[in-house]
Amino acid sequence: MWTRKFYLRGLFDNWLSDVKATILEFIGTTFFLLLAFGGIQAATAELNLSGSAPSVILHDLYIALSMGFSLLISVWIFYRASGGVFNPNITLALFLAGAIRPLRFVLYCIAQLVGGIAAAAIVCALTPGPLLSNPVLADGVTLAQGVFIEMFITAALVLSVLMLAVEKHAATPFAPVGIGLTSFVCHLWGVYYTCVSMNVARAFGPAVITGFPYSTQWVYWVGDGLGSLLATALYMLFRQHKYWLLNPGQ
Amino acid sequence: MWTRKFYLRGLFDNWLSDVKATILEFIGTTFFLLLAFGGIQAATAELNLSGSAPSVILHDLYIALSMGFSLLISVWIFYRASGGVFNPNITLALFLAGAIRPLRFVLYCIAQLVGGIAAAAIVCALTPGPLLSNPVLADGVTLAQGVFIEMFITAALVLSVLMLAVEKHAATPFAPVGIGLTSFVCHLWGVYYTCVSMNVARAFGPAVITGFPYSTQWVYWVGDGLGSLLATALYMLFRQHKYWLLNPGQ
Amino acid sequence: MWTRKFYLRGLFDNWLSDVKATILEFIGTTFFLLLAFGGIQAATAELNLSGSAPSVILHDLYIALSMGFSLLISVWIFYRASGGVFNPNITLALFLAGAIRPLRFVLYCIAQLVGGIAAAAIVCALTPGPLLSNPVLADGVTLAQGVFIEMFITAALVLSVLMLAVEKHAATPFAPVGIGLTSFVCHLWGVYYTCVSMNVARAFGPAVITGFPYSTQWVYWVGDGLGSLLATALYMLFRQHKYWLLNPGQ
Amino acid sequence: MWTRKFYLRGLFDNWLSDVKATILEFIGTTFFLLLAFGGIQAATAELNLSGSAPSVILHDLYIALSMGFSLLISVWIFYRASGGVFNPNITLALFLAGAIRPLRFVLYCIAQLVGGIAAAAIVCALTPGPLLSNPVLADGVTLAQGVFIEMFITAALVLSVLMLAVEKHAATPFAPVGIGLTSFVCHLWGVYYTCVSMNVARAFGPAVITGFPYSTQWVYWVGDGLGSLLATALYMLFRQHKYWLLNPGQ
Repeated sequence: MWTRKFYLRGLFDNWLSDVKATILEFIGTTFFLLLAFGGIQAATAELNLSGSAPSVILHDLYIALSMGFSLLISVWIFYRASGGVFNPNITLALFLAGAIRPLRFVLYCIAQLVGGIAAAAIVCALTPGPLLSNPVLADGVTLAQGVFIEMFITAALVLSVLMLAVEKHAATPFAPVGIGLTSFVCHLWGVYYTCVSMNVARAFGPAVITGFPYSTQWVYWVGDGLGSLLATALYMLFRQHKYWLLNPGQ
Repeated sequence: MWTRKFYLRGLFDNWLSDVKATILEFIGTTFFLLLAFGGIQAATAELNLSGSAPSVILHDLYIALSMGFSLLISVWIFYRASGGVFNPNITLALFLAGAIRPLRFVLYCIAQLVGGIAAAAIVCALTPGPLLSNPVLADGVTLAQGVFIEMFITAALVLSVLMLAVEKHAATPFAPVGIGLTSFVCHLWGVYYTCVSMNVARAFGPAVITGFPYSTQWVYWVGDGLGSLLATALYMLFRQHKYWLLNPGQ
Repeated sequence: MWTRKFYLRGLFDNWLSDVKATILEFIGTTFFLLLAFGGIQAATAELNLSGSAPSVILHDLYIALSMGFSLLISVWIFYRASGGVFNPNITLALFLAGAIRPLRFVLYCIAQLVGGIAAAAIVCALTPGPLLSNPVLADGVTLAQGVFIEMFITAALVLSVLMLAVEKHAATPFAPVGIGLTSFVCHLWGVYYTCVSMNVARAFGPAVITGFPYSTQWVYWVGDGLGSLLATALYMLFRQHKYWLLNPGQ
Repeated sequence: MWTRKFYLRGLFDNWLSDVKATILEFIGTTFFLLLAFGGIQAATAELNLSGSAPSVILHDLYIALSMGFSLLISVWIFYRASGGVFNPNITLALFLAGAIRPLRFVLYCIAQLVGGIAAAAIVCALTPGPLLSNPVLADGVTLAQGVFIEMFITAALVLSVLMLAVEKHAATPFAPVGIGLTSFVCHLWGVYYTCVSMNVARAFGPAVITGFPYSTQWVYWVGDGLGSLLATALYMLFRQHKYWLLNPGQ
């Protein structure tokens, strides 16, 4: 159970810890998105390789595995250092839920956005051809559908962080596994329809490197932001009703 | 070890807890089936995409991953709140095994069926084209084969819940992983033959939204119901013979 | 650490426990191979489906997932009851290592062989067309290559059981995960070359139901038997040199 | 937390333990690479099989699964014996971080290189056709891109070992899972571009057996070596800043 006791201190009391944690969070976000964007780059390069049967469904599965398992292992490695958040939408939910304080919220968001840009730049430099990890809506998907798919899958990811990592229980040390698999499942639904961001740093980094080629960048900011709010609201509701008393045998 | 002590109290003694848990169970079932139906929708939309080599086996693997891992992470997230049952056939087994009481049994079944309808409706609204998650028997599969395949795979899923989550041991906090992987394996067998329900809420929700297009809906109600009974009978047998004494070193 | 103290008692002192455990082991083996053979049946039926691009590599991956994860969840479910062995080759290694006594060794082998036949019969009855789970060597693989591939992969599987489940340490309750994943990896190598048995009950059951269509059944009995002996020898060597003292920090 | 106290003793004080551990490390490396090279051999043999749709992306996914999960289960099995390092680049990082002493460093590197040769020889003998596991850069990938991709993915793998296995915390007994999945994710990026070594023993073994057919062997020695140094530097940085104090709630 988290408490608000740390929250009541002065805003800058832990500034040195906050800055150190922010540097680790920047390294961790770059680490996560480097592996994830690398996998997307490989999947997309292979999709229409001559002599290889093209398979959109396999391409999407490959991306879901890259994104989900990159997150899984990155969170596991950085979990006990910076917390392994790597995502401004999750950072927002942690802030609203009172798990982190205002200064860390702001610093982490900056570190995550810059980490997304750094990872996109490295993958762009290290692989032949243009960067291929910009998310875009599929043909036939309306803007509203895109926003709401992103909202629901982002909410699922954020809720997994709040219930598995923020709440403390016997399986908490293994929360990275649950969070990574949640990302994997959300990709299985979303990759085909929205390419899946669930994380404005993931949408923003490649867009900065490639000069914002799509006009739908806002879909990911709005959809993912709404997802954070939805997950935080559900979490607050669960806690208010003392969910841990409802099924005491478990 | 569960006991019947809670069971002996009045039927409505815990009605407020039961109602709160039911609301969480509704949210959890919707969460699970939203991600699962989303994955099925994506897999089926991609199957015959022009320019992509169609692969039924890959389509079935994609669905098995979506269904299995959606269940895995949904149970993990909702495990300590509502129990993360999401399935009237498992609810029935829990009731027969004495793990939940009559009022919760009835409320959970309703919440799960309504959750299935809600999830199907949301996926239908958020993705282009018709809803594609109605289960149906493959060509050449007889009604009897369909019923018995469903019976065996449902029994496997229910038995995993009874042995991994209801029984208490060192790995119980990780039961959601075992339950989700059981669902994955059952899908690997069944998706090709019956599309796999193992859960009347999963068969019922899409059928309600699409107006019951197939006359074989009953196969899933009968097969899955028999699976619940078979698993409960095995579990009772194991417990009667004190299975935990048979291999004490383990 | 296992001890030989139970071993010194009379051969039939625990006969009732042995018989009860054998019944559970029969149920468990049938459960495991029912799901596994079902997955193989689906994979093979889908391989040359008209309108679907045939992919041998995907067929093999599908089988590896079916076999590996069926074992994973079956062992997890039956672990604390019968031990979840399901495999006469593992039973032999447990007997040679002193972890089980002679009576249980004989009873388990019988239960496992009969369970393999039962599972093959049920899958044959429940799916259209002939049973497709007989293992056979691929074209170009010599008998000697078949025997030694089976020997090495069986040894890997048996060693995983001895080191993860028989030896006691912090991760022992999760041994089923490691054992199942070992089976998965062994299949990734072997499915293409030998179809992978690693378990005479898995090779014997379908052969009985289909009337021994291949003359290479002996390859699986010899190769898998040698694998048991190799793994047991390695395990004895590790224990003799007190492997747990070599890397005390871990 | 590791200390340097063992380090201050004489270089050869534990020579007998070091030799015994080296023999186990040789067996473990051979075990790991036997399964991994076997999977690569199967994937590549199936890629252009007549009557099967060729799919480079599926071939790469199959290899990623073989390599990643072979490592996962091999480390799990040998973890408490030799430490389950299997990789001179990880051995170097353990030495630089002070976790192993000079004699064991030298012996382990030799055992790992010889294990790589042994595994390549066995797979070559047991499967039809030439050995197919030599890593080589894809068309269009420059030498510099190859070196730096290898550097980044090797650093990720080494960092997973340092943070999950060398550092002690609640999930340390499950470090093999995290390390294996890190290898899997690194392969998802790299297989298409560099075939992925991340381990000079993995690049060296097949090259010895096949007579060094490619002139780019050095890429893997330089890239993987730089990866070790990068990961060690990051780990030192994290420890210097007492990363475990930055996020005390986790």
